[in-house]
Amino acid sequence: MKLATIKNGRPDGQLVVVSRDLKRVVSASRVAPNLQAALDNWEAVTPALAALSAELEAGAIAGQPFDPRNCLAPLPRAYQWIDGAGYLSHLERVRSLQGSKDEQLQSTRPLMYQGASDSLSAPNAPILVPDDDLAVDFEGEVVAILGPVPMHANKAKAAAAIRLLTVCNDVSLRRLVVDDLQNGFGFFHAKPSTSFAPIVVTPDELGSVWRDNRLHLNVRIMINDALFGQPNAGVDMHFDFADLIVEAARTRELGAGTIIGGGTVSNRHDEGLPTKKDGIGFACIAEARTVEKLKYGKARTPFLKTGDRVRIAALGADGVAVFGEIDQTVAVL
Amino acid sequence: MKLATIKNGRPDGQLVVVSRDLKRVVSASRVAPNLQAALDNWEAVTPALAALSAELEAGAIAGQPFDPRNCLAPLPRAYQWIDGAGYLSHLERVRSLQGSKDEQLQSTRPLMYQGASDSLSAPNAPILVPDDDLAVDFEGEVVAILGPVPMHANKAKAAAAIRLLTVCNDVSLRRLVVDDLQNGFGFFHAKPSTSFAPIVVTPDELGSVWRDNRLHLNVRIMINDALFGQPNAGVDMHFDFADLIVEAARTRELGAGTIIGGGTVSNRHDEGLPTKKDGIGFACIAEARTVEKLKYGKARTPFLKTGDRVRIAALGADGVAVFGEIDQTVAVL
Repeated sequence: MKLATIKNGRPDGQLVVVSRDLKRVVSASRVAPNLQAALDNWEAVTPALAALSAELEAGAIAGQPFDPRNCLAPLPRAYQWIDGAGYLSHLERVRSLQGSKDEQLQSTRPLMYQGASDSLSAPNAPILVPDDDLAVDFEGEVVAILGPVPMHANKAKAAAAIRLLTVCNDVSLRRLVVDDLQNGFGFFHAKPSTSFAPIVVTPDELGSVWRDNRLHLNVRIMINDALFGQPNAGVDMHFDFADLIVEAARTRELGAGTIIGGGTVSNRHDEGLPTKKDGIGFACIAEARTVEKLKYGKARTPFLKTGDRVRIAALGADGVAVFGEIDQTVAVL
Repeated sequence: MKLATIKNGRPDGQLVVVSRDLKRVVSASRVAPNLQAALDNWEAVTPALAALSAELEAGAIAGQPFDPRNCLAPLPRAYQWIDGAGYLSHLERVRSLQGSKDEQLQSTRPLMYQGASDSLSAPNAPILVPDDDLAVDFEGEVVAILGPVPMHANKAKAAAAIRLLTVCNDVSLRRLVVDDLQNGFGFFHAKPSTSFAPIVVTPDELGSVWRDNRLHLNVRIMINDALFGQPNAGVDMHFDFADLIVEAARTRELGAGTIIGGGTVSNRHDEGLPTKKDGIGFACIAEARTVEKLKYGKARTPFLKTGDRVRIAALGADGVAVFGEIDQTVAVL
């Protein structure tokens, strides 16, 4: 089942069911007014959503054309956004850049931070920053949207709470990271609004590319129409989504609609940029710069500036963007 | 105007208007189903809420008895919970305890962290912890609930966004603070569910005790029926609520319903415990322990254990708890 949220003038938008080929949508507002309401009552509403989806596929419902520009983030605001660090090579590559202390990398328990979830950006919204001199970076990530998770959940319960998957752009202002972390209270100003792909998909709909609590698809990043990276989200993910959920619920329950990120997708390699057509590349600029520093003695890839375009999509075997595409341009407020 | 949220079997509860003497309530569900809905549409709904309040005061509406045990947190789940550090003496007293580096205390820009807001606790809910050996502490704070704040808001706009005030208990697991902060990603496991007093009050209703963007009331803390502290929230608040909001909106907008905390209320003094009837004391255990270490060479006050009772209330001139009372007992899950 594929779902999206379209604009209707209200903060939470309107829930729609999307056809498998991403061409048509049908309103699901008679089942649930918005995605959060559906997540609050998931077991009760999924049969009706599945029925709508089946009718849309069969052509019994014609539906409306799907227009990603009409979409909000699937949850335009959420009660929780937690970003985990599933890929250790991302941590290794960015730590030197952000002035972090030289702590031992945690390979036994994942790191995570509490992100802001009050204003999540639409897939085609501008990346609004207060100043483009703040080392503006993107981070391509896979995220899971959860049902309720009790405190101290085990791995099986954690895995069973995964309701929907999609990708996000965890926008980062690298110049503010050092300050945030040195203050000791964690990320705050360095993490403005996170952006989301238009479509969320149930695990069963993904079939075998969702296995071992990992999404086995390439996440392709295009910057100004050049390939920046296409790491595979199922490769080198040291902590899978169930591990991340278990860790997040160590001292508290997680409410329905919690969004948890797997961290910047990152595969181990030492290729430089530009990324070749069959290369791996990176899902954020900071990692590319670290590799360049090691390889060439100097970072070459600039951070994003006003007008730069970022496209992020997880690609199916047929090359189709499974969750639709994030397609954003940097703009100064 | 005084508002509260009562249980109705739904995640967001039901909005009620509370009488000035906190004795009666009337349902506001014909105006807005819940507090978040009211905040989403504040200008449109406040006349109707004010009218209900006036009828309740005049006796034109009899209403129902107010029972705090029937209350949820005013926002049982919120889209954002930011905790600022308005009182520098709190930071000075706790930094030595939590293994923080010896950074220069920031007296020019306030520290703040992104808290979890998906499950906010009712005023009489147990303080549920995974283990009571984690140095369980309370933190008595004043909080503001906001309307929308644009990115880069100035101080006047920030102050004007304050819709409602109340107090909270920012429960802290001190033993996990060191780990959280050393990881470099900020508080996470050390901050389980925050609890709230039952009643939220508009600034105009508070009169002169709300001035200079500070609440000029004593916040009284009782632990197991002994006075622990009663610092004045209007004294020694270096950064006022408008300062905190300006800082929070430096790189992003804040959505309607954002809750921002002023930080643990803390007045400068060097009294030890027990706090005398006319003493000041502390609004968290960690501060008391630091003062004891300096005074006696050793911390004497234990952290909370299963069965310990914490009561937090902001007291009006008449000794009445302006926002009702937080009254919780520690329990292990």
